[in-house]
Amino acid sequence: MNLWNDPAASVDDRADALLAAMTLDEKVGQLASFWPQPASSSQIAGDVAPMESAMSAGLSWEESLRHGLGHLTRNFGTEPVSADDGVKRLRDYQRQVVEHSRFAIPAIAHEECLTGFTTYGATVYPAAIAWAATFDPELVEEMAAAIGSDMRAVGVDQGLAPVLDVVRDYRWGRVEESLGEDPYVVGTLGAAYVRGLEGAGVVATLKHLAGYSASKAARNHAPVAIGPRELEDVLLPPFEMAVREGGARSVMNSYSDLDGLPVLADSGLLTGVLRDRWGFRGTVVSDYWAVVFLEITHRVAGDPRAAGIMALEAGLDVELPSTTGYADLASAVTEGVLDEAYVDRAARRVLRQKIELGMLDPGYDPTSIGDSTDLDSPRNRDIARRLAEQSIVLLSNDGVLPLQVPSRIALVGPCADDPNTFMGCYSFPNHVLSRYGGDDLGVDVPTLLDALRHELDAEVVHHLGVPVTEADRGGIDAAVEAAADSDVAVVAVGDLAGLFGLGTSGEGCDAVDLRLPGIQEELVERVLATGTPTVLVVVSGRPYALGAFADRCAAIVQAFMPGEEGGAAIAGTLTGRLNPEGRLPVGIPSHHGGQPGTYLAPPLAWYSEGISNLDPRPLFPFGHGIGYTTFALTDLRLSEEVVATDGTIEVAATVTNLGDRAGAEVVQLYLGDPLAQVTRPLKQLVGYAKVRLDAGCSATVTFDVHMDRTSFTGRDLERIVEPGRIDVMVGTSSEDHPLIGRFEISGEVRVVGEGRVLTTPVRIDG
Amino acid sequence: MNLWNDPAASVDDRADALLAAMTLDEKVGQLASFWPQPASSSQIAGDVAPMESAMSAGLSWEESLRHGLGHLTRNFGTEPVSADDGVKRLRDYQRQVVEHSRFAIPAIAHEECLTGFTTYGATVYPAAIAWAATFDPELVEEMAAAIGSDMRAVGVDQGLAPVLDVVRDYRWGRVEESLGEDPYVVGTLGAAYVRGLEGAGVVATLKHLAGYSASKAARNHAPVAIGPRELEDVLLPPFEMAVREGGARSVMNSYSDLDGLPVLADSGLLTGVLRDRWGFRGTVVSDYWAVVFLEITHRVAGDPRAAGIMALEAGLDVELPSTTGYADLASAVTEGVLDEAYVDRAARRVLRQKIELGMLDPGYDPTSIGDSTDLDSPRNRDIARRLAEQSIVLLSNDGVLPLQVPSRIALVGPCADDPNTFMGCYSFPNHVLSRYGGDDLGVDVPTLLDALRHELDAEVVHHLGVPVTEADRGGIDAAVEAAADSDVAVVAVGDLAGLFGLGTSGEGCDAVDLRLPGIQEELVERVLATGTPTVLVVVSGRPYALGAFADRCAAIVQAFMPGEEGGAAIAGTLTGRLNPEGRLPVGIPSHHGGQPGTYLAPPLAWYSEGISNLDPRPLFPFGHGIGYTTFALTDLRLSEEVVATDGTIEVAATVTNLGDRAGAEVVQLYLGDPLAQVTRPLKQLVGYAKVRLDAGCSATVTFDVHMDRTSFTGRDLERIVEPGRIDVMVGTSSEDHPLIGRFEISGEVRVVGEGRVLTTPVRIDG
Repeated sequence: MNLWNDPAASVDDRADALLAAMTLDEKVGQLASFWPQPASSSQIAGDVAPMESAMSAGLSWEESLRHGLGHLTRNFGTEPVSADDGVKRLRDYQRQVVEHSRFAIPAIAHEECLTGFTTYGATVYPAAIAWAATFDPELVEEMAAAIGSDMRAVGVDQGLAPVLDVVRDYRWGRVEESLGEDPYVVGTLGAAYVRGLEGAGVVATLKHLAGYSASKAARNHAPVAIGPRELEDVLLPPFEMAVREGGARSVMNSYSDLDGLPVLADSGLLTGVLRDRWGFRGTVVSDYWAVVFLEITHRVAGDPRAAGIMALEAGLDVELPSTTGYADLASAVTEGVLDEAYVDRAARRVLRQKIELGMLDPGYDPTSIGDSTDLDSPRNRDIARRLAEQSIVLLSNDGVLPLQVPSRIALVGPCADDPNTFMGCYSFPNHVLSRYGGDDLGVDVPTLLDALRHELDAEVVHHLGVPVTEADRGGIDAAVEAAADSDVAVVAVGDLAGLFGLGTSGEGCDAVDLRLPGIQEELVERVLATGTPTVLVVVSGRPYALGAFADRCAAIVQAFMPGEEGGAAIAGTLTGRLNPEGRLPVGIPSHHGGQPGTYLAPPLAWYSEGISNLDPRPLFPFGHGIGYTTFALTDLRLSEEVVATDGTIEVAATVTNLGDRAGAEVVQLYLGDPLAQVTRPLKQLVGYAKVRLDAGCSATVTFDVHMDRTSFTGRDLERIVEPGRIDVMVGTSSEDHPLIGRFEISGEVRVVGEGRVLTTPVRIDG
Repeated sequence: MNLWNDPAASVDDRADALLAAMTLDEKVGQLASFWPQPASSSQIAGDVAPMESAMSAGLSWEESLRHGLGHLTRNFGTEPVSADDGVKRLRDYQRQVVEHSRFAIPAIAHEECLTGFTTYGATVYPAAIAWAATFDPELVEEMAAAIGSDMRAVGVDQGLAPVLDVVRDYRWGRVEESLGEDPYVVGTLGAAYVRGLEGAGVVATLKHLAGYSASKAARNHAPVAIGPRELEDVLLPPFEMAVREGGARSVMNSYSDLDGLPVLADSGLLTGVLRDRWGFRGTVVSDYWAVVFLEITHRVAGDPRAAGIMALEAGLDVELPSTTGYADLASAVTEGVLDEAYVDRAARRVLRQKIELGMLDPGYDPTSIGDSTDLDSPRNRDIARRLAEQSIVLLSNDGVLPLQVPSRIALVGPCADDPNTFMGCYSFPNHVLSRYGGDDLGVDVPTLLDALRHELDAEVVHHLGVPVTEADRGGIDAAVEAAADSDVAVVAVGDLAGLFGLGTSGEGCDAVDLRLPGIQEELVERVLATGTPTVLVVVSGRPYALGAFADRCAAIVQAFMPGEEGGAAIAGTLTGRLNPEGRLPVGIPSHHGGQPGTYLAPPLAWYSEGISNLDPRPLFPFGHGIGYTTFALTDLRLSEEVVATDGTIEVAATVTNLGDRAGAEVVQLYLGDPLAQVTRPLKQLVGYAKVRLDAGCSATVTFDVHMDRTSFTGRDLERIVEPGRIDVMVGTSSEDHPLIGRFEISGEVRVVGEGRVLTTPVRIDG
C-alpha cells in the first residue's frame, strides 16, 4: 500500500508522500475546479459582458480532467435536478476525475448551503439573519447538522457556508445572509453552524474573509475604507471563533479591497492572520471568479496568470468555480516566475483535506453514493419550523395581539401569499429556480395566508395591494377597502430576494436607502388611514426604516425571511399559539437615510452632546423583542470588585417570568470601557443567554467573563487588556439595561497572546 | 535691547532667548487663549449640557491674564459690534495682555474668515464651495488678500480658514465650507487662499487636519473609518500643498478619531507628517473645545489636564477658544507627569510666530490699531461680484435660457427673496447674527427677486411657495397659480445655512439623504405639473439629488451659496448678461440615497460590470458645467511616449470657442492607472485650466505633468511612482473626455521623497 493510502499513517505524512509522488501538473490540478453545468451569465448576472467573459474563460472539462482535479463545483446547485439525477451525474463526474488521476484522487464536491442544501427539493431553512434572531446556537447547530447529513448522503464534501460578515450598513444586499451587526452573536452562531456541518462530515467554508460588509455605500464589491483596529476588533473575531472554536476547515476570501489592497493579494490576512495567528490548517478557496477580478476590477494584475500567481502567493489554495487564473500556474513555475513551493503549499493543504475526508483510504469509492434521499424530510421540516418560530420578533404591541379571533381579518401586502418572499437569496428557488422560470419550488411552502386560514376560525380576506417592487397601484384600492371593512388589518410587506439586482435583497441587491421597496409604504399609509387597527408584518432580509408610521401601527412583527415553515410561524405568533421570542440581530432604524450605522458605530455620544443634528438612535435597538409575557431582571451580582488583567469575573443576574404563560427571554451582557487608549464603542455585547421560563418562574444566569473579553487593539496595534474601570450592563437590548454595575481591572497593560479567550461561558440555574 | 526685541536677529535666536527668560507659567500662558465675549452655548449649540460645560469650563479673564496670554479669541466675531467698537475693545484687551506680560507680549487675535471676515458689516463672499466652482485660483487669492487686509487693518493677526477637507459624503453639513471632492482642486484653491491671506500679513489656518469629512454617515464629529492609503492619497495632499506651496503658518486639528485614534492624540500626524515630513514650522491650534473632547467624547483622557498633556505631547500648541485642558500644564510639569520640553516646544512655536508678526519689535503697539475701516468696501463688493458670477453653474438648458424677456415670469421658492439663503454657515449673519435676532444683516444683500426685477424689463411675480425647512404647504397654491399664469417659472430652492442643527447646511447640519430639504420637492413637482417651462435654480451648500425631475426642467442652474452679490449673478446668468462659467466641484447625484460616493470612490467599474444593482454614476458629473457658447477640445499632443519615473511629460490640447459669444471653459486633465500594486481610482484630476476665449478663437493648453503626479501609496505604505501604462484623458468633466491618449512610465519603481512635485504647471497660449 502507498503511504498516502494508509489510514494508520498521519495525515501530514500521507499528504507529503503523495505530494512527492506528483508531477507539477498534477499538483496544480488539485488547486483547480470545474463547474459542470454553470448557469449562463444571463441567468446569474444579467446580460453583462465582463461577467460573461469571466465566467466563460475557464478550462474545459477535458482540460480540467487531464491531471486530476481539485474541486467539482455545484453539481446539484445550478439547475433543477432531482437528488437521484444529481447523484447519477456526480457519480459520473467523480468516476472520470478518478480515472484521470494516477493516484485515483476524487474531487471535492462543493455546494452552496447557507439556508439549506441549495438544490432542488431540499429544505429551505430561514435566512441566516433569522437564525440570528433566535439567539440559539444549539438550534443553529442542529440545523447545520441536518444540512450536512443530507449533503453527505448525496456525496457532497464541502458546503459554502456560513457567512460571518458583520453587518455595518443595512443597505448591503447580503445582510440577509449574515448573522447581524454584533461580532459576538455572529461568532457564536457561526461557530455553531460550523460545528453542525463539520460534525456531519462536511467541510464548512467561512465567508468572506474579510471586509465585504463594510463596502462604501454598502455596494456589492465596492472598495472598503477601514483601518486595522476596526478590522481586528469588529470584522475578524467571528472568523477567529469559527476557526479556533468551530473547527472550520475552509475559508473563502472576500471580493473586497481594503484601503486599496485586495484580499486575494494580501498575504498578511490570508496567511499571517489566518494561519500563523489562528493556526488554521484547512484550505482557502476563492469566491467565484475572484482571481480574475484581480485583473478586471481591482486592476492589480495584468492578466489571469499574474492574478493567479498573486493569489496563490498570498495564500489562496483553490480557485473557484472554474480554472482561469490558475490555468497556467505550471508554466509560471517552469518559466521561473513562480516558486514551486507555493504550488506545493497549496496542494498539500488540498491533499490533507482529501485525506481527512477519507478520499485516499482503501476502498473509498466516490461513485458509490447512496441512491436517493429525502432532502426535505420530516426531521428537516421540524427543524425549519422551530427555527422559524423562534426567529419571529414582536417589536411593538398595543394589545391587538394575540388576535382576538375577530370576525374578519384583512390580510394584504405582497408578502402575504408569495412563498418566494419567505426565502433568502441563497435558497434554491430564489438563487437558481426563479431564473429558470416555472412555479415548482421543489418544496412545500405554505404562505401566511395559507397558515392564517388554516389556523384561525375567522374570515381572512386577502388582497395583494401592491407588488414588492413595481409601482403598480392597481391593487391598492381593493386592499384598502378590505382593510376598512375588517376588524383588524394585517399588512405583510418586505422583500423578494434575488441575485444581482433581480431582487430587493440578496447578493448584488443593495439598497440606496432603507425605505420599504417599491411603493409598499403607500399601501401601509393607506391602510393606516382607514383607522382599522393595523398589524404590520415585515418579512425582510434587512431592517427597514419604520419610523414614519410605527407609532400608528397597533403592532409590528419583524419576520426575517423565515423559510419554508415561516407561514405557520408568523400565523402562530399573530394568534398567540406561539409566544414571540425572536430578538433583533440588527437595529430597526427610524429614518430611511443616515447609513451606515449600527449600535457599535457611530457611538450615540455624538448625538446626545448636540454636536450633530442627526439622531442615530434606532427605532428599535439591537437585541430588542417583546412577547406575550414579560420578564424582570434583578439582583446583579459581580463576583469581584477588582480583577487582574488575566482574571475572570462572574456576572450573575436573576430573570423572572412575570406573566401568565411560558416564554423565553434573551439576557444580554454588555460591557463599557469609559476610558481607553483609543476610542471604544460605548458598549459591546460580551455574552447572552436564552432563558426559557414557565409563568412565575425564575432562573439565575451567570456569565464567566474573562478579561480577554475586554481586550481591544490599542495604539500600537497590539491586542491588550487595559486596567481601569469597566461598566457592566445587563439587559434585554443594546439600549435597555435595568442592571448596571462596574468593576476594576487592576495591574499593568497586558498584551494578549494568540490563544485569547473568545467566548463567555454561561450557566442557567433554577 | 533684549535679543528677542532685535529685528536684526534671527527669529529662532529671538524666540530661544525669550523662552529662556520665561518662567514655566509664562510659557504655558503663551499656549492659552481667552474668548472675551463667547456666545452662550444656547446660541451656539442649543441647550445641551455637555457643550455648555465644555464652553464654560475655561479660565477666567483674570486667570488668563496672570502670566501673559497666547491668543485672543474672536473679539469681533461673536456679537454684532461695529468695527469701531471692536477696535476699541481689542485695544483694551491687548493693553491688559501686554501689561500683564513681563515681556510685553501681545496676544494673537484670531477671527473666523472663511466667507469673509466673520464680523458685523463685513463683506459676505460666496461660500467656499462656490469659489471652488470658479476653478480660478487667482480670483480666490484676490479675495483672500482683501479679507486679510481688512482683518489686518483692525488688528486681527490670524484667520481660521481655509477648510481643506476633501468631500467624501455629500450629506456632511460642512460641504459648503469645503472646496469640493477633488484633492487637487482643494489643494490648489486652498493654497491660493492661503497665499492671499498670508500675503496680507494674516496667519492662515488650515482646517481640519485630518479626516473630518470622512466621518461615518457624514455625521459631525463621528468616528472615521479610514486606512493609511486613503488618508495619504486623498485627504492629506491639500494640506501638504497649502503648507509647502501656500506657506500656511497655522493648522487646526480635526475633531475626528481615525480608526479609533483621535487626531489630537496622534503625534504621527500632528508631528510626524506635518512637521517632520512637510517641514511645517507654524503653530497647531485646537478646534474649539477639542482638547476637552478627548475626555468627554473620545474618552481617551480621564480629565481635562490629562487631555491637555495628551494633546500637547501629540503636537498641539495652542488650545482654543479658551483654556481648560491646558489650565494645569504647569502643575503637570512640577508634579513630574509632563516633560517641560513639550511646553517649551509649543511655546517656542508661538513666540516664533509672534516675532514673525512683528509683535516683539521695538515700537510695536497692539493698541494703536487704525480707528475704523470700511469692511464692505467697493473693492470687496467687486471681488464678491466676480466670484459669484463665475461660480454659477448651468447644468442643463433646453434653450429656455437666456430668458427671452418674456412678458411674465413667476419667481417662486424660498431662495428667491431671502438673503440668508445666499450666505454660508460661517457668514456673520448666519453664524452669529441669526441667533441674536433682528433683520440687520450688516451688509446689503440684494436677493434674486431684487436683481431680476432690476435687470429685466418684464413682470416678475413672486411667491414664497414653501419655506426651506418647515412642512408648511400654505403658500404652494399661490406659487403654482403664478407659475401656471406665466411664460416661464423660475423655482429657487435650496438651503438655509446654520449652526448645530439650526440650518439645513453648515456645521452640525448634516443630512440623512440628498433630498431637497423640507417639502421643496413638492413645490418643484407642482410647478412642473403646470406645464409652464420651468427653470430650476438650486441655491445650496451641498449637491442635492435632482434625478427625480431633472429631465422635466427646461434648465437647471446650480448656485452654491453665492454671497452678498449673488442675486445679480444669478439674475445675469438667467438673462444672458453673463455667460455661465462655473463648473461642479462636486457631482450632482441622481438619487437621494447611496452615499457616500464621489467621482474618486467608489469606482464606476463596479456598476458597469453588473455586480451591484446600484448605479453610482452622478446625474451631472464633477467638473460639469455648460454655457451659452460651446467649446471644442481637439488635437491632443503628448511630448513623450515613454517617460522616466522622475520625468515630466507635456500634455497639450487645443480648445476652441465654437459659439458666437465670449466665454470660458475649464479644460481638465485626468490620468488613469490601469494596473497598479493597489487598487487605484479609475481616473483622477491632475490639472485644470480656465481658458477665456472670444467667439471663434482658439488657444493651446499645455500641462507639464511630473511623474510624481502619478504617485500613490503602494503596498508597503511608501509613496511610489510605478512604471507602466498611464491613460490620459482631457475633457470637460470627470465623465466627458473627448481626448484620450496614453504614455508609458519606464524603469523601476521609484520611492518618492518628501519634496515631491505637487502641482501641474499650465500654460495657455494663443
